[in-house]
Amino acid sequence: MRLGIVGMGAIGASTARLADAFGHSITAVADADGAAVDDEGVDVQTALEQKQREGSLGEQTVEDALDAEYDCLLEVSPPSLGEAEPAFSHIATALDRDRHVVLGNKGPVALRYGELQELVLESEGQLRYESTIDGVLPVLSTIADIGPDHIVGVRGVFNGFANFILSRMTTERLGYEHVLAEAQDLGVADVDPTFDVEGTDSALTCSIIANELGSPDREFTLDDVDIQGITEVEGSAIDLAKEDGMTIRLIGEVQRDTLRVAPRTVSVDSPLAISGSRTVVELNVRHAGRLNVSSSATSSEEIASAILTDVNRLET
Amino acid sequence: MRLGIVGMGAIGASTARLADAFGHSITAVADADGAAVDDEGVDVQTALEQKQREGSLGEQTVEDALDAEYDCLLEVSPPSLGEAEPAFSHIATALDRDRHVVLGNKGPVALRYGELQELVLESEGQLRYESTIDGVLPVLSTIADIGPDHIVGVRGVFNGFANFILSRMTTERLGYEHVLAEAQDLGVADVDPTFDVEGTDSALTCSIIANELGSPDREFTLDDVDIQGITEVEGSAIDLAKEDGMTIRLIGEVQRDTLRVAPRTVSVDSPLAISGSRTVVELNVRHAGRLNVSSSATSSEEIASAILTDVNRLET
Repeated sequence: MRLGIVGMGAIGASTARLADAFGHSITAVADADGAAVDDEGVDVQTALEQKQREGSLGEQTVEDALDAEYDCLLEVSPPSLGEAEPAFSHIATALDRDRHVVLGNKGPVALRYGELQELVLESEGQLRYESTIDGVLPVLSTIADIGPDHIVGVRGVFNGFANFILSRMTTERLGYEHVLAEAQDLGVADVDPTFDVEGTDSALTCSIIANELGSPDREFTLDDVDIQGITEVEGSAIDLAKEDGMTIRLIGEVQRDTLRVAPRTVSVDSPLAISGSRTVVELNVRHAGRLNVSSSATSSEEIASAILTDVNRLET
Repeated sequence: MRLGIVGMGAIGASTARLADAFGHSITAVADADGAAVDDEGVDVQTALEQKQREGSLGEQTVEDALDAEYDCLLEVSPPSLGEAEPAFSHIATALDRDRHVVLGNKGPVALRYGELQELVLESEGQLRYESTIDGVLPVLSTIADIGPDHIVGVRGVFNGFANFILSRMTTERLGYEHVLAEAQDLGVADVDPTFDVEGTDSALTCSIIANELGSPDREFTLDDVDIQGITEVEGSAIDLAKEDGMTIRLIGEVQRDTLRVAPRTVSVDSPLAISGSRTVVELNVRHAGRLNVSSSATSSEEIASAILTDVNRLET
């Protein structure tokens, strides 16, 4: 399949490099600073080197990339809030051209779920966004497979970076600010980590899951999530939990109409007490107990693999 | 959908009781001692009471049940080895009648995989057996979803009862014979637990997974699995592992042509170090690291739910 990719951060670059191994070619790569488009195939390595050297992937623009010859557009930019623009418009353009769209960017599907589904109805293209929920974890496919009506609730550790911070605070008995500064020195934290540690990213995940589970005549968005991040978690609270065989994790939770992100105490034996930058999702299935899905995968290449697996799920 | 159920042990009975909640009716229930058949719907509770009182579900036979009006046959008898009979013949009869078949019994698919697939090709009926792999865990659907070619290997704790025994030996520092006797007293062990503790059940799981992953011109069966159970595991070995932060689990492993079941040391932090009667499956995905699926579900009702979820996956 010919792919167009918008978003050339670490995940976009990994996706472009890995596409060949999944049997696909690239006809356009783009980000806000420029684009390289070639219907015969873009030389990804050259474009990435030019980006590093000159600040732009090529002489062309995102609009040129959106007009290019691709079968599937990958929108893998970091999410923006509010109207989820410009990603939403990128998707609309591709679907309007009857092209498939696969998202790594969770913004549009978390914030404008209903509008997206309407665009899909009017298009011959398909839309997939499995990897917007914790990358490689097969959460949406499992919900679809079991049937949303059979799912009583979903909760999990949805954000790997916040979990990395909490895990370090627990094992090293260090304060939040200290661990965060250390992570930034190591380069594992974004310069602005608020999106992760304040719970916004986990809340977007909650919104997507709630929409997938479905509630009659109700669409969910970020405003429907009660959000509390980890910035106020005290080491003393972690110590106190420890005495009772518990630990603290940033848990996202969806119970039909109730969406919540907050630091919660969980038993150290619970599958939710996952450590490091790993994530876990627990489906509470009617008659079938709790089903846990977790992964060791957090690298850009691993998330890129999840995005390309989603491309391979397109029914062609 | 109208269901015929062969096998009325704990799982069969739970499946029959739960069918209504999944939107299905029952037109036949059977086991080796008799059957109750009614095209208008069998009164399951009455049949089960008759079984308890008189030793048989009704005056009719398994053959009558196989000839009944059902859309899907559920074969949920305990597995038998060798030719996996009579379950294999039950499946053949239903597929020959162009009816769907859903298996809870892992014998036929582990032991006669190729023959089953041939029967399916000649039938208008579909065959599903997701719940033969660790009940509620979505293992086969995830393998199909990711694509078997992208799976490098699969390993896991496949047998909940063996894991229960090993967990008790570890936490209570008791010997194998002692824990087994205790489990039998409690009624959680079958009278003959050899199938679980000697690794046969896990080996059948390995065979199914190996066939699903696919190897050119190769069909796998029980003879292809190198099997060692837990009956020889010494408490001293568990203690020794513990000193190094490890524990012992009965691990089933499939790496393309190599199938193995054996007690192995795993890190206590590993997702494979699951405790109690829970099970876990780890998929090693090319470019995407290790994906773990685990569940708390081990009751008959939970496994029945998995079987009925498989019925709902039939494409009708």
